[in-house]
Amino acid sequence: MNTEKILSLTHWLEKNSLTGAIITDYHSIAYLSGFESDPIERVLALVLISGQPPFLFGPALEVNSMKESGWHFQAFGYEDQENPWQKLVNHIKDATKGQSFAIEADNLTVSRYHALQSAYPSATFITDITNQINRLRLIKTKAEIKHMIAAGRDADRAFDIGFHALSEGISELAVVAKIEYDLKKSGVPAMSFDTLLQFGAHAADPHGATSIRKLQLGDMALFDLGTMTEGYASDATRTVAFGPVSQQAQEIHAVTLEAQLTAQSQAKIGMTASELDAIARNIIIKAGYGDYFVHRLGHGLGSSVHEFPSIMAGNELVLQEGMVFSIEPGIYMPGVAGVRIEDSGYMSQDGFVSYTQTPKKLLQF
Amino acid sequence: MNTEKILSLTHWLEKNSLTGAIITDYHSIAYLSGFESDPIERVLALVLISGQPPFLFGPALEVNSMKESGWHFQAFGYEDQENPWQKLVNHIKDATKGQSFAIEADNLTVSRYHALQSAYPSATFITDITNQINRLRLIKTKAEIKHMIAAGRDADRAFDIGFHALSEGISELAVVAKIEYDLKKSGVPAMSFDTLLQFGAHAADPHGATSIRKLQLGDMALFDLGTMTEGYASDATRTVAFGPVSQQAQEIHAVTLEAQLTAQSQAKIGMTASELDAIARNIIIKAGYGDYFVHRLGHGLGSSVHEFPSIMAGNELVLQEGMVFSIEPGIYMPGVAGVRIEDSGYMSQDGFVSYTQTPKKLLQF
Repeated sequence: MNTEKILSLTHWLEKNSLTGAIITDYHSIAYLSGFESDPIERVLALVLISGQPPFLFGPALEVNSMKESGWHFQAFGYEDQENPWQKLVNHIKDATKGQSFAIEADNLTVSRYHALQSAYPSATFITDITNQINRLRLIKTKAEIKHMIAAGRDADRAFDIGFHALSEGISELAVVAKIEYDLKKSGVPAMSFDTLLQFGAHAADPHGATSIRKLQLGDMALFDLGTMTEGYASDATRTVAFGPVSQQAQEIHAVTLEAQLTAQSQAKIGMTASELDAIARNIIIKAGYGDYFVHRLGHGLGSSVHEFPSIMAGNELVLQEGMVFSIEPGIYMPGVAGVRIEDSGYMSQDGFVSYTQTPKKLLQF
Repeated sequence: MNTEKILSLTHWLEKNSLTGAIITDYHSIAYLSGFESDPIERVLALVLISGQPPFLFGPALEVNSMKESGWHFQAFGYEDQENPWQKLVNHIKDATKGQSFAIEADNLTVSRYHALQSAYPSATFITDITNQINRLRLIKTKAEIKHMIAAGRDADRAFDIGFHALSEGISELAVVAKIEYDLKKSGVPAMSFDTLLQFGAHAADPHGATSIRKLQLGDMALFDLGTMTEGYASDATRTVAFGPVSQQAQEIHAVTLEAQLTAQSQAKIGMTASELDAIARNIIIKAGYGDYFVHRLGHGLGSSVHEFPSIMAGNELVLQEGMVFSIEPGIYMPGVAGVRIEDSGYMSQDGFVSYTQTPKKLLQF
C-alpha cells in the first residue's frame, strides 16, 4: 500500500474541491493499494473520498485477496448478479462538500460512465484524475527503481537463454517457449508482454507476432522481451546474427546501434522527450534510413509496460530524475531485414542508467 | 474478413438512420475484419460508413499487416506524433444522411469519446453498437465451432501434459511452464489467459494466481487453462488429487461434479441462462456448500475468452443453437480446498456439446 501517494491524491482532491475519486484502471489500483488483479470485464475500483477512509471495491470472490494484499482499509464486494455501480455508491457516505467525483477518463468506458451516473444521479463525474496519477507514477521512488533493476536482470537472463537456443531450423515460437519455460521454472511468474522473436525479413514488420517461421543461416533474429519481476516490468530488445549476415543487414544494425547509444549517452535531465527522440532520429535520417524508422523512440514503463513519458516528437515534457523509459530506435526494410535495439532505464543526475546489460554490438551465433 | 457480418451491421446502421460506426474493440475488429492485433494504448478502429467502403485505421507501422490480413478494403495509418482521431475523421467523406455515428460504449473510454467529439464537432456519437456486435458474435457459425473444437483439443493436450508433470515438491509455476512450453513447441501460439494452477488450500482462492507453492502429497491441484487456436479460445478446468486426499476434499469434488454434469446434461435450447445457473447452484446449495460457490456458472467465449452470454442469476437470455459458453461450478472452502470443474461447449439441438474430453471424475496422480 502506497499511503504517501494516496494522501497526495486526497490532498489534490481537496484542493480542487472534489468529493472524491473513482479509480478504475487496475494498474493504478495496484500501484496505489498494493492489490494486483486484472478484473477482466468485471468492475474493480479504488474509491477515495474526502472525510471517509478509502476503500477497494470489486468482485466478491476477490475480497479476501484484497484484504491479504497489504491493503489496510476496507474492501467491499459485489456478486455477479448485482449492479456493481449501485453497490459501490451505497458505500459512499453522504458527501458534505458537494458531490463531484474525479474519474480516470482514459480508463472509464462510456457505458460505465453512464452506469455510474445512473447509480448516482446527483453527483458529477467530470474531472479527470489521470494526469495526477500519471504524474505520481512518472517519477519512480528508489524502491521502485530497485525492483526494475531486478526486472532488468531477468530480461538479461532471458536474452542469454534465447541466444543459446538459436539453431538452424528452430522456429521463433520454439525459442520463445524455451525462454519462458526456463524463466518460469526459476520463479519469474510472467512476462511483461508476449515475447516477440522475428527471424530474417519477418523482423521488417515492426509489430508482427512470433510465428512458426524457421531460422536459417544468414538470418538476423530480433528479440523483444521483458519480465514482470517484483511487480515491475522490464522491456528490452536485441537483434543478433545467426551465421554471417548480409552487408546491408550489418549496416542497418550499425546505424540503429549508433542512434541508440548516442541517445542513451546524451539523455540528460532538463532535455525534452522530443529532443531526445530527435537525437536518435536524426542519426537514422542522415544515414538515409529515416523512412524506415516508423515509431517513437520510446515509452515509459513501471508497474505496467506502457506508461508515461512517451519519448516522441511533439512531447515537450522535460526529463526529470526518476523517470523511467525505453530508448528503442529501429530500422525496418520490408523484404530485407529489421533491426531494433532497446534498453529501458531511469534518469539520474548522471544521465540515463540502463536496466539491461546484454551487449548491444552485433553478436553472431 | 467477415463480409456477411459487416453487411449485416451496415444494414442495421441504415435502418437506424446512422451515418456510420466507429468500432474500437480490437476483438470486434478481429472478428469483423480478420485483422488481429492488440494496439495496447494506440488507436485502432474499423470505420463503417453508409455510402463509402469500410476502412481500417491504426498505427502506421501496422498498415502493412492490415493489408496482408485478408482485409479487402482500405487501411490508413497515423504516426505517433499525429492526432489519430483528427486523422481518422479526415478519411470520412461528407455524410449525406446526417452525421450520427454509433460507437462501442463498452470499449470507448470517456477521454477517447471527447477526443473524437473534438475532432468531429458536428457529428454525434451516442448510439451504442455493442449489443448489435455481441448479437452477431453470440451465435457461432459452423466454421467458428470447428475452430473451437480444435482449441478444445489443445486444452485436452494441456491437461495431459500438466497432469503428468505433477510430482512431489514441484511448484505451480514450474508445471505451468512445462504445459506452455510443450504447447508452444508444438505450434500453439498463445494461451487464451494466464494458465492457473493452484495446489491444496491455495485453490480455495477462486481468483488467486499461479505461485511458487510446492505440491505435497494429499493436495488437490486445480488447473484452469485454455489456448488460442485458429483464432478461437478454449477454456476448461479440472481438479485432480495428488496422492490420497481428505474425505472432505473428495466430497467437495463429488458435489461440484454432480452440479457440473447435471447442468451440462440438462442444458437445453429455450431454457434461460438464469435457469441453467440455478440447476447447478441448487445442487451445491442442497449439499450445504452454497456459501462457497461465489461466482456465476459460466461465461461465453469465442474469438475472446470472455464474451456473451453470461450464465448467471438474473440473465433471462434464452439459450439458442450456436451459443458457446462455459459451465464451471466451484466450491471454495478457505483453508481447506477449492474445486472447480469446467467444460466449454456449444448449444446444439441435442443439448450442450463439450469441446473438452478430459475425464471429470476425481483422477488421482
